[in-house]
Amino acid sequence: MAARWKTPGFAGELAAEFAGTMILILFGVGVVAQVAGGGIGDHDSIAWAWGLGVMLGVYVAGRISGAHLNPAVTIALAAFKGFEWRKVAPYCLAQTLGAFVAALLVRWNYTEVLHQADPELTIKTQGVFSTLPGNGTLPVGEWGAFRDQIIGTAILLFLILAITDAAGTPPAANLAPFVIGLVVVAIGMAWGTNAGYAINPARDFGPRLASFFTGYGGAFRDQTGYLYFWIPIVAPILGGLLGAGLYKALIGRFLPKEDAPEPGRLPDTPETVEARRG
Amino acid sequence: MAARWKTPGFAGELAAEFAGTMILILFGVGVVAQVAGGGIGDHDSIAWAWGLGVMLGVYVAGRISGAHLNPAVTIALAAFKGFEWRKVAPYCLAQTLGAFVAALLVRWNYTEVLHQADPELTIKTQGVFSTLPGNGTLPVGEWGAFRDQIIGTAILLFLILAITDAAGTPPAANLAPFVIGLVVVAIGMAWGTNAGYAINPARDFGPRLASFFTGYGGAFRDQTGYLYFWIPIVAPILGGLLGAGLYKALIGRFLPKEDAPEPGRLPDTPETVEARRG
Amino acid sequence: MAARWKTPGFAGELAAEFAGTMILILFGVGVVAQVAGGGIGDHDSIAWAWGLGVMLGVYVAGRISGAHLNPAVTIALAAFKGFEWRKVAPYCLAQTLGAFVAALLVRWNYTEVLHQADPELTIKTQGVFSTLPGNGTLPVGEWGAFRDQIIGTAILLFLILAITDAAGTPPAANLAPFVIGLVVVAIGMAWGTNAGYAINPARDFGPRLASFFTGYGGAFRDQTGYLYFWIPIVAPILGGLLGAGLYKALIGRFLPKEDAPEPGRLPDTPETVEARRG
Amino acid sequence: MAARWKTPGFAGELAAEFAGTMILILFGVGVVAQVAGGGIGDHDSIAWAWGLGVMLGVYVAGRISGAHLNPAVTIALAAFKGFEWRKVAPYCLAQTLGAFVAALLVRWNYTEVLHQADPELTIKTQGVFSTLPGNGTLPVGEWGAFRDQIIGTAILLFLILAITDAAGTPPAANLAPFVIGLVVVAIGMAWGTNAGYAINPARDFGPRLASFFTGYGGAFRDQTGYLYFWIPIVAPILGGLLGAGLYKALIGRFLPKEDAPEPGRLPDTPETVEARRG
Repeated sequence: MAARWKTPGFAGELAAEFAGTMILILFGVGVVAQVAGGGIGDHDSIAWAWGLGVMLGVYVAGRISGAHLNPAVTIALAAFKGFEWRKVAPYCLAQTLGAFVAALLVRWNYTEVLHQADPELTIKTQGVFSTLPGNGTLPVGEWGAFRDQIIGTAILLFLILAITDAAGTPPAANLAPFVIGLVVVAIGMAWGTNAGYAINPARDFGPRLASFFTGYGGAFRDQTGYLYFWIPIVAPILGGLLGAGLYKALIGRFLPKEDAPEPGRLPDTPETVEARRG
Repeated sequence: MAARWKTPGFAGELAAEFAGTMILILFGVGVVAQVAGGGIGDHDSIAWAWGLGVMLGVYVAGRISGAHLNPAVTIALAAFKGFEWRKVAPYCLAQTLGAFVAALLVRWNYTEVLHQADPELTIKTQGVFSTLPGNGTLPVGEWGAFRDQIIGTAILLFLILAITDAAGTPPAANLAPFVIGLVVVAIGMAWGTNAGYAINPARDFGPRLASFFTGYGGAFRDQTGYLYFWIPIVAPILGGLLGAGLYKALIGRFLPKEDAPEPGRLPDTPETVEARRG
Repeated sequence: MAARWKTPGFAGELAAEFAGTMILILFGVGVVAQVAGGGIGDHDSIAWAWGLGVMLGVYVAGRISGAHLNPAVTIALAAFKGFEWRKVAPYCLAQTLGAFVAALLVRWNYTEVLHQADPELTIKTQGVFSTLPGNGTLPVGEWGAFRDQIIGTAILLFLILAITDAAGTPPAANLAPFVIGLVVVAIGMAWGTNAGYAINPARDFGPRLASFFTGYGGAFRDQTGYLYFWIPIVAPILGGLLGAGLYKALIGRFLPKEDAPEPGRLPDTPETVEARRG
Repeated sequence: MAARWKTPGFAGELAAEFAGTMILILFGVGVVAQVAGGGIGDHDSIAWAWGLGVMLGVYVAGRISGAHLNPAVTIALAAFKGFEWRKVAPYCLAQTLGAFVAALLVRWNYTEVLHQADPELTIKTQGVFSTLPGNGTLPVGEWGAFRDQIIGTAILLFLILAITDAAGTPPAANLAPFVIGLVVVAIGMAWGTNAGYAINPARDFGPRLASFFTGYGGAFRDQTGYLYFWIPIVAPILGGLLGAGLYKALIGRFLPKEDAPEPGRLPDTPETVEARRG
């Protein structure tokens, strides 16, 4: 592979995962605060802004860390694409920290509207920060949320691997982040009913902590009082592994692999290669 | 044409058609379940998620099978672009099977909300899975649906041939799947009134079977009791042939053809060529 | 300029203008029929589907005719970019004919829903086909519509020239049609109040004729009885000339022009050049 | 860097900043006039049209001036990317003038609907032109607006630097303007509650002046009577500096910089290079 540049170092990778996930959550938690707190927008804007947040987070972190922004992605890439296992825990921590800081910023900025919409900071606006079974109202229960998060995250990883597979039809011109953002738009529109499409443990747990530390005493429980917080952590990890495995079984093994990019990175395109050449 | 890679084999092509159509239906039937079952989203999200589902299915299957994902496409490409007739039936079967499995997954995941919205599993939520004349409520009748499916699928094939014609203005940078997805977004917004824009026999019949086997006894009939299921199979096939023929007559024959890609494939772009070179 | 291909001939150019405008109107008039007749969608889907219709029409006709699809574009390109004046009238006729045929198809397909929504075929659903001052309800009057069509079409031509100027920042990878489609999405969202953003005499007059010949006796008049039809013909032509002139004055003259593409064509990108090379 | 073209001169740069910001505001103020005055569209169309307006403004001005279109961008690029300080004031003036002229055009075109919706030209439709704390209704206050504008503009500059950093993953094929437009779509969806996402002093002050000169006597004050106009000028400038600094600290310093583009410009892509070569 032409024009490999010097590695930015592990600190840079962690900073990139932190910053990329922060950007993702600034938009993702931000849009729900705007809709639920300010009454501006609707579910369409929620789906679009989450997807655009993912796209922008990937643009921020892509070149340095590969822009996982999601422990379910990091773990699946370690299991299936040779990403180093020793980097997994630090990546997940940086992602969760980025999500936590971003959620604090949203919590701070939207103080007045959140307190106006829900003075007691109850489960009514808990959904601004973290997910709930049936989004807090539909009767799907914890099992409905658990299986939904497995399926939803399996779809996510299946598609991330498809879109970034240099042997497939990867979007070129550095537009893979755009298409990956559209994956999340579509998941939000079609797979957001049972569990608010966490599909990312950092996206869920970081903001959950942020809400807990800023007045949401019930942040770890769902509307039935169940200690729910582990479901959007465990189920996405399982789903991610399942989806990556299915991609390998159904698509990946039929594609020639002589041109594999570095594990856990976006493939180089002629544009990125030439851009680095100058 | 430079850099032709080894064929992944016919099993790979069928796996790709299966997986690509599965992805399409996971989003397409998923979004209608979310809107009709969960009350989350509206017709705009339905149009976008179907289109994005097509885009993502094409990214999954494009390099291996050409990503037809639709018997009307497969048959039109056989009739007009030299796709091998002996592959047509297996392709259509793989597509229908992918749609069937995806619809079963949606049916399973959305069990609680579907049963809450429609405890008897009637025609009220039948439209989550398969199409109905006038979407089950408007008075367009079977003839209105039949002619609509001919026109809608003719538009689809006309545009697929336009967008993938290497002698025209095909989107490069591996972005044809994105533009083809936008075709389906636009058809959903403008041609979804009379018959729910099946425009794809596999998209309609696979989920129809899945709903029939999981409690929807009336799956093959429309709101008048008419045995409707054949219309979204036959009319799209006729419409696809019509649209492909019209493309050839109005546009294709005016374009020079010395650089024809392999029949039934997306054209190679400089990006895909260079990506394979490494 | 490398790799210039043989001209498809004037018949091909007219066929392309006919087909491209037909595609545009199949989506544009189709989406208004779906919203106003079928009650499916809203103003957002109207704005998106018109824009996507333009994008798809440009993909269809781009390589052959330059995809004007609009007499205001054709005339402005003749006045400012050297497009041959002798081709102007035939282009405009082909565009209007394409719009007419497409509107007939929509009229036929949506017969039942139009007759249900408006049994007398009055001004209530006239707006499905052609434009009205204030969209038939707001009190803007003919002068409000006239100045609006000048401004809106000036914006359109200003931006078309900007986006296709090879000396500027033209979208490459054959994605100019996508960006031009987004221009029309944005015009629909911001400049559709006073006169329904005709911004295209063929888009307005072709469907107006189609509605007149199929039962809409008042097709040429607005809600006050005024013989309105000429405004969305004359004002867009004036506005297009104004916008093209402003582009030249404010932007074009500051850009170097040694690499001008053939008059009235999309600029070649490396992709299109290489795609033709094979 | 290959193929550097002759500079269009400083007059050209100012004309480009004027024209690009004019285009931005024609869509941005236009869409709010359409929604608030004409009742056509909703917050989704507002978010999309503002973002598309930014995209189109960048396409217009990109090659000539770098398309800042925003004093917060100009100042941050001067502070962090070597843009010449002596050009800052003229750029900001040209931007504000472009926004002023565009807002006058919207004011003129939408005269009838604005007077119908708000005959006294009060704060009710002031928000068509300039921003207000809590969009004039939510109880966020001036401090809520101030901190919001710092955060929102920090996000904007952080992302502009990320997306145009030639050492990162910049969108190629001249599609950076599209992605930057999507940044503004996302900010509108997630960061528009507290202060209407001015994030651009020219965007706010130019139209504020235009409304003041055309009958909006209270244009400089908010709903509490506070002289608010300075907040969407000062806070975005501070936020832009903060965001650019954070980008450098978290991302920029980990990327190799041997291939820096000219200060304040979009990076050249292979497409633009080859397009200029011809």
